[in-house]
Amino acid sequence: MAKGSKPTQKAKTTGLAVSPMAPKAFPKLPPLAGVRLATTAAGVRYQQRTDVLLALLAPGTQVAGVFTTSKTASAPVLWCRDNLKAGEARVLVVNSGNANAFTGKAGLAGVRAIAEEAANVARCRTSEVFMASTGVIGEPLPDDKIVRVLSRLVGEGAAGNWRAAADAIMTTDTYPKAATATAMIDGVKVTINGIAKGSGMIAPDMATMLSFVFTDANLPASVLQECLSAGVGPSFNSITVDSDTSTSDTLMLFATGKGGKHTAIAKASDKKLTEFRRALDGLLLDLALQVVKDGEGAQKLIRIDVSGAESDTAAKRIGLSIANSPLVKTAIAASDANWGRIVMAVGKSGEAADRDLLKISFGNHVVAEKGMRAAKYSEAAATKAVSGREVVIAVDIGLGKGMARVWTCDLTHGYIDINGSYRS
Amino acid sequence: MAKGSKPTQKAKTTGLAVSPMAPKAFPKLPPLAGVRLATTAAGVRYQQRTDVLLALLAPGTQVAGVFTTSKTASAPVLWCRDNLKAGEARVLVVNSGNANAFTGKAGLAGVRAIAEEAANVARCRTSEVFMASTGVIGEPLPDDKIVRVLSRLVGEGAAGNWRAAADAIMTTDTYPKAATATAMIDGVKVTINGIAKGSGMIAPDMATMLSFVFTDANLPASVLQECLSAGVGPSFNSITVDSDTSTSDTLMLFATGKGGKHTAIAKASDKKLTEFRRALDGLLLDLALQVVKDGEGAQKLIRIDVSGAESDTAAKRIGLSIANSPLVKTAIAASDANWGRIVMAVGKSGEAADRDLLKISFGNHVVAEKGMRAAKYSEAAATKAVSGREVVIAVDIGLGKGMARVWTCDLTHGYIDINGSYRS
Repeated sequence: MAKGSKPTQKAKTTGLAVSPMAPKAFPKLPPLAGVRLATTAAGVRYQQRTDVLLALLAPGTQVAGVFTTSKTASAPVLWCRDNLKAGEARVLVVNSGNANAFTGKAGLAGVRAIAEEAANVARCRTSEVFMASTGVIGEPLPDDKIVRVLSRLVGEGAAGNWRAAADAIMTTDTYPKAATATAMIDGVKVTINGIAKGSGMIAPDMATMLSFVFTDANLPASVLQECLSAGVGPSFNSITVDSDTSTSDTLMLFATGKGGKHTAIAKASDKKLTEFRRALDGLLLDLALQVVKDGEGAQKLIRIDVSGAESDTAAKRIGLSIANSPLVKTAIAASDANWGRIVMAVGKSGEAADRDLLKISFGNHVVAEKGMRAAKYSEAAATKAVSGREVVIAVDIGLGKGMARVWTCDLTHGYIDINGSYRS
Repeated sequence: MAKGSKPTQKAKTTGLAVSPMAPKAFPKLPPLAGVRLATTAAGVRYQQRTDVLLALLAPGTQVAGVFTTSKTASAPVLWCRDNLKAGEARVLVVNSGNANAFTGKAGLAGVRAIAEEAANVARCRTSEVFMASTGVIGEPLPDDKIVRVLSRLVGEGAAGNWRAAADAIMTTDTYPKAATATAMIDGVKVTINGIAKGSGMIAPDMATMLSFVFTDANLPASVLQECLSAGVGPSFNSITVDSDTSTSDTLMLFATGKGGKHTAIAKASDKKLTEFRRALDGLLLDLALQVVKDGEGAQKLIRIDVSGAESDTAAKRIGLSIANSPLVKTAIAASDANWGRIVMAVGKSGEAADRDLLKISFGNHVVAEKGMRAAKYSEAAATKAVSGREVVIAVDIGLGKGMARVWTCDLTHGYIDINGSYRS
């Protein structure tokens, strides 16, 4: 554990020490017209904690989604991808404790059973039921435990249950994650509420983990999809905890259209959407950073700014090479200004780099340039720059105009503790 | 630390607990005609341990090498690459404690100063001097400390100093690494001796760390290079400790030609070389496995056999995706038969995979097939298979004929301990 970190509380649900980067308080999310939420402890795997979330959505709700790129995607991911084609949603069912991934025909049958009961109790089509599961891979899902709570949950759905919803989808998370934002669309105020969960198997090139975002704006599925696909790049797809991509990553955006009445929007490029998109992007980044701040064992947030690469893609690859390096992450955990490991990570990225043009800074302190340690290098200043809760590493490649910003957390004993015992 | 691991001894030089997979004894390496070795404690960085190795090679010695693919390769790597073109070697100087990487013009000047003094005392050309440095990146190399010991070392060079040589090149290694083999070339017995060091920043697609192999066979540089380039693929390039590629990785093969006289060999494909190449390949694999068994914090050796992939390249990528997954490595550390994480790692590799064709075994026990947990799955049998010092994971992709075998070690608290404090 990093120096100076004395967690004084335990996460309510997991028993793990709460991340020192947890927000001071759960944000105040307003009720959202057209969304009702209910949760329960169905005993899928965990004892004495909620593990099923039901979200009931107003008729006509439009939906968009981004999912894991894994070749071994979970049964609910396959189900959602199929249903997304129609773009309409009435129910979202999420369970924690079991990923329903690599569970064969039984896994798919479980998804169908849950969808049929959800459609039955919510009086909609199964194609309007969306689902996500997170937890252990490969264990058969006890879908009957979920099926039998749905009718009760439908009756309990209420508008303000955001905290309970964020709690119910947690696995090894040490705090519930949520964010809210408002924006004007053509003079009408709309609200966006989102929840997310981490906190291991976090790597980009997918939607990363589970996150569900809801808005009362009135937007068609095609517009939502374009907004979401654009927003995921610099947020969820720019964070990494451990380079491991989950089979279950799901990010969905639901628009109920039940807020104030605004002009119809047919294109994501419509200028009336500018403020909404900015608010959505900000909310996605907020949630993504909450995920990385709760990375398993994390004691520090590390931001890596890469500039001067041959392209933005090259910059991102270099950034992720640094962010995924165990040697970089353990050094930062120990507040060791070991900038040589940044040099190593740039060198191994496979992207063009020139030793003599490379410039590396910790915070505002330049540590390396012109192919060697900076002339004004100060061990004290460099150490100070990596000693706080939030560490900024800037790398200028000096070759082009490519830029990227990625985030990761440090690698501590906590990660080993959690992942050497998570399943049992 | 994994259960049941009680290291009872400390490494002589580093103070770290000796890897439980260390060989019982240092192997008996015979003297090798044409090679003399000397070591000393020059105080490059470490106190009270040897840190400089000088190898004196008979006139006419031929040399081949494979080096890191890093874009920020160290000064000695750049030097060796240049000198390799002529293919002749008389001196090898290795220091531990400082990598002389990212040290700018001063770093290159240091290499030149050492080469000039070495050429001077060994009476050869600077183009016949090879060099390697391992240790901290970015610190200026105190080359004067190395320069001033060379004349004395030349006088001390002796034929049997293999143990001292293996000791002097160690950094965070917990035991010295060496191997020996013999082979017949056209009825004449030749000997191969090799030494290596690890033990962090170990990842393939390069020569991996430092390893120096010597033979008394009489082989031209071009033949040596072909043998070495072929041999590195299934050995050093098939191991990974932490996915981090060093700036300094160097594998060199020297042939003195001072053993028994055998026919001239002009091509690596010459059938008279078959036995020699097999012996060399075996020795390289032996050394590579010694490196991974001494991976920082390692308590277990993990072998991953991938079959049925679309190509050998695809199989290797899948194998490395598993081998580099922190979640797989922490699970094995805890003797947790968490095969779902293997599914995840296959899925994220980017290579073609079909959930329903995938077959995963731990040892001889099939844990998953046909898209789900194997019908005869036994938690006890699976746990037993991952509980020993050596764990074998077999993955059949079921799509083609591509095969690969890679090795890694588990990820334990020891890795965090070592890398949170190595530099200071």
